[in-house]
Amino acid sequence: MLVAFLLFDRVTALDAVGPYEVLQRLPGAEVVFAAARPGPQATDGTLSLVADTSLDDVPAADVLVVPGGYGTRPLVRDRTVLDWIGQVHATTTWTASVCTGSLLLAAAGLLDGCEAATHWLAVDELAALGAVPVGRRVVDSADRVVTAAGVSSGIDMALVLAARLAGDDVARAIQLAIEYDPEPPFDAGSPGKAGARIVEMAGRPMRR
Amino acid sequence: MLVAFLLFDRVTALDAVGPYEVLQRLPGAEVVFAAARPGPQATDGTLSLVADTSLDDVPAADVLVVPGGYGTRPLVRDRTVLDWIGQVHATTTWTASVCTGSLLLAAAGLLDGCEAATHWLAVDELAALGAVPVGRRVVDSADRVVTAAGVSSGIDMALVLAARLAGDDVARAIQLAIEYDPEPPFDAGSPGKAGARIVEMAGRPMRR
Repeated sequence: MLVAFLLFDRVTALDAVGPYEVLQRLPGAEVVFAAARPGPQATDGTLSLVADTSLDDVPAADVLVVPGGYGTRPLVRDRTVLDWIGQVHATTTWTASVCTGSLLLAAAGLLDGCEAATHWLAVDELAALGAVPVGRRVVDSADRVVTAAGVSSGIDMALVLAARLAGDDVARAIQLAIEYDPEPPFDAGSPGKAGARIVEMAGRPMRR
Repeated sequence: MLVAFLLFDRVTALDAVGPYEVLQRLPGAEVVFAAARPGPQATDGTLSLVADTSLDDVPAADVLVVPGGYGTRPLVRDRTVLDWIGQVHATTTWTASVCTGSLLLAAAGLLDGCEAATHWLAVDELAALGAVPVGRRVVDSADRVVTAAGVSSGIDMALVLAARLAGDDVARAIQLAIEYDPEPPFDAGSPGKAGARIVEMAGRPMRR
């Protein structure tokens, strides 16, 4: 089972690494990280993730995962990347996005008129690309397409996919292997729970 | 504020990337990834994470994060890495580990007789190195030392550190920025919740 991740400049690291840590544990999974230009891809911080292969070398996959990040914005007009997403999607059992990765699925034409998730700050951008944003964390968006909300939601999405691909018990064993028994010290993980003051703080750029 | 991550061959990607995604968003944070040999570091799957600097170039830090992974096992006898941990720890506000990263803190002498967390499969190894394993997710282990349980627990640990370093509201805003409102599809994230059959499955190597 080939699991392909798209990487690109200014990807959000956890968008890719959350699902990676789940899906690489599927029995028989072979994982590849593909980019237009293979090699180190900058995340939206100082870390780089290495793409080990080019898009051309991955014409098909059983699972395609498209992460988000600031780097999605120029890619919504990049025909090479969008055509690749469409080409690989035609071969997948499941195509998935995390965070603003859904902007790329929408720009590739996979989400026209479909409910889809994205980062809460990107809802208007997703709607402008023809999808119907919804506030759920993991969304069955179209035939064989699952979209997840912001950043950390990719872990939940990947566990859902793991169960569909290999059964509930395998997904439970993976959840235990990564000890995913969340205990956030605050209850501020969605705009509704965080409240207006924290939403305003989180909407500001928080890095230098 | 300098946040230093130790990287090494066969690190678990999410152990590092979970805390990275939180701590890089701290106001004024500068993040470095240090390794004995800078460059791409293999994770315990196909992905590589890039260490941008050498241990020698990071003699001090405000926060030190030591992730886990199979690659910790040879390092518990690696004086270069253990001495570096001790040297940097002498300068930190907080030193933290995720998963089997606590084996390295213990081998470096930071956890003698102290309660500490680790991956549930590594409890005996941690005890053999002089720490007192406890089953909590985020543990205040010693003066300025926090240890976290397996893999995904680093996200919770980093949010705890973010609150201590920059206040509760900043931590809440970071939680919202990474949309950390967990909804695991199963309740199997700890051995006690997963039950004996799933524990046995998760203890077996699940990859090819």
